[in-house]
Amino acid sequence: MDHNNLIILKIGGNVIDHPPVLEAVLRDFASWQSPRILVHGGGKIASKMMEKLGIIPKMVDGRRITDRETLDIVTMVYAGLINKNVVAALQSHACNAIGLTGADANLIPAVKRPVKEVDYGFAGDINPGSVSADMLGSLIRTGLVPVIAPITHDGAGSLLNTNADTIASNVAIAMAKIFRVQLVFCFEKRGVLRDPDDEHSVIDFLDETLYRRYKEEGVITAGMIPKLDNAFTALHSGVTEVHICSPENLKAGTRIRENEE
Amino acid sequence: MDHNNLIILKIGGNVIDHPPVLEAVLRDFASWQSPRILVHGGGKIASKMMEKLGIIPKMVDGRRITDRETLDIVTMVYAGLINKNVVAALQSHACNAIGLTGADANLIPAVKRPVKEVDYGFAGDINPGSVSADMLGSLIRTGLVPVIAPITHDGAGSLLNTNADTIASNVAIAMAKIFRVQLVFCFEKRGVLRDPDDEHSVIDFLDETLYRRYKEEGVITAGMIPKLDNAFTALHSGVTEVHICSPENLKAGTRIRENEE
Repeated sequence: MDHNNLIILKIGGNVIDHPPVLEAVLRDFASWQSPRILVHGGGKIASKMMEKLGIIPKMVDGRRITDRETLDIVTMVYAGLINKNVVAALQSHACNAIGLTGADANLIPAVKRPVKEVDYGFAGDINPGSVSADMLGSLIRTGLVPVIAPITHDGAGSLLNTNADTIASNVAIAMAKIFRVQLVFCFEKRGVLRDPDDEHSVIDFLDETLYRRYKEEGVITAGMIPKLDNAFTALHSGVTEVHICSPENLKAGTRIRENEE
Repeated sequence: MDHNNLIILKIGGNVIDHPPVLEAVLRDFASWQSPRILVHGGGKIASKMMEKLGIIPKMVDGRRITDRETLDIVTMVYAGLINKNVVAALQSHACNAIGLTGADANLIPAVKRPVKEVDYGFAGDINPGSVSADMLGSLIRTGLVPVIAPITHDGAGSLLNTNADTIASNVAIAMAKIFRVQLVFCFEKRGVLRDPDDEHSVIDFLDETLYRRYKEEGVITAGMIPKLDNAFTALHSGVTEVHICSPENLKAGTRIRENEE
């Protein structure tokens, strides 16, 4: 075990919404020995809760608007229900998890998204420079395993809703000042695929040269490009490796690194 | 400032349910310089949420039964909505709050209440010996201010619902091994009253001799006795002072101490 390595695992709706898959991922994550952080998304539970409460989701151009009622629901579901059940599950596997939002210990201060054409409401934008890497590092060195919910705050008393992928990559970049960081995105495919319809066509390794070539050849298609662009941004900002995999096998999938010098 | 003193403030429904009162208490608490912990109850928000969702509270002999649905609601409301909004408010007053349940960092392991005549469901009983005083002490010495929601866990993956007064006094007793602890219960009266109908009849000071005398004289009436018995249990277990006050003035009220030797 090298205490200078840090693994940041991001799990999204495809994991959260399937209890047996979630349980398997958490058991696996709990068994790792390296310093690590779990970042989780929200899945469909918040939408189901809004439906039950008769709250109609407000959408503009396919993006959700976080009004006051929605903020309260996502705070309850992400920071309460999901976060604390994940913590309890990890604790049952002897992993000393501590559930956190960006408000806790002022870990991730955010800025309410400025109103331009669209008012996204209580949506929080962040940058890696504002993440309290030292405080996260200090919790990790105490032997704790941070479990981060996709909620931040504005420092003026309001919570904010922030995308979990954004939190994971910003935390990874911030922590890269202290640790050698591997950022793992656990998503619905087994990795980056040569053929989107063939789960066995995983590309094992990507660097920017290969990425450019695959894009030119049309091997990597539109859906994956924003995710991979984000991955390369993280790598350019100090993250050692980005890893894209499915919950079935967190050790397989696509490993992405900077070009060898 | 003496770093060996620790103040544990417990706020209940009378504070949580009144936003301007809550805001004033949090501003006051944030301004204190001593190491401190806030323990909060739930108030009526969980009941209102259950009502909105059409969940009928299950009661036996006036006590709520925590079934699975109720556990999910109290987890959302106590550990999510209330806890994270309190943290964000404290952060806005430059108090470096960190919101926690008993599951986080395994701070308060609990035991699901054994089924005798009544099955209370997911209700957690705790004892001061199981509170992770060292971990709480370590967070406090990092400069953090723990904000504890009344949710614990069984160590086997399940969250449990635990009374906030019980959490406050058990945490106080546990922390008394490390700090000189003052336990403050903020409740609906200005303190222990000589005349329950006269808010100006606050008894400034109580020790066990005075308590016994007031009970014999009928000055202290039935409603206060369980609260005061709990206070003396805490004092007998190492807590330096228990303080009972109203949110209007956290510095006034009734101070309770062991008899002078």
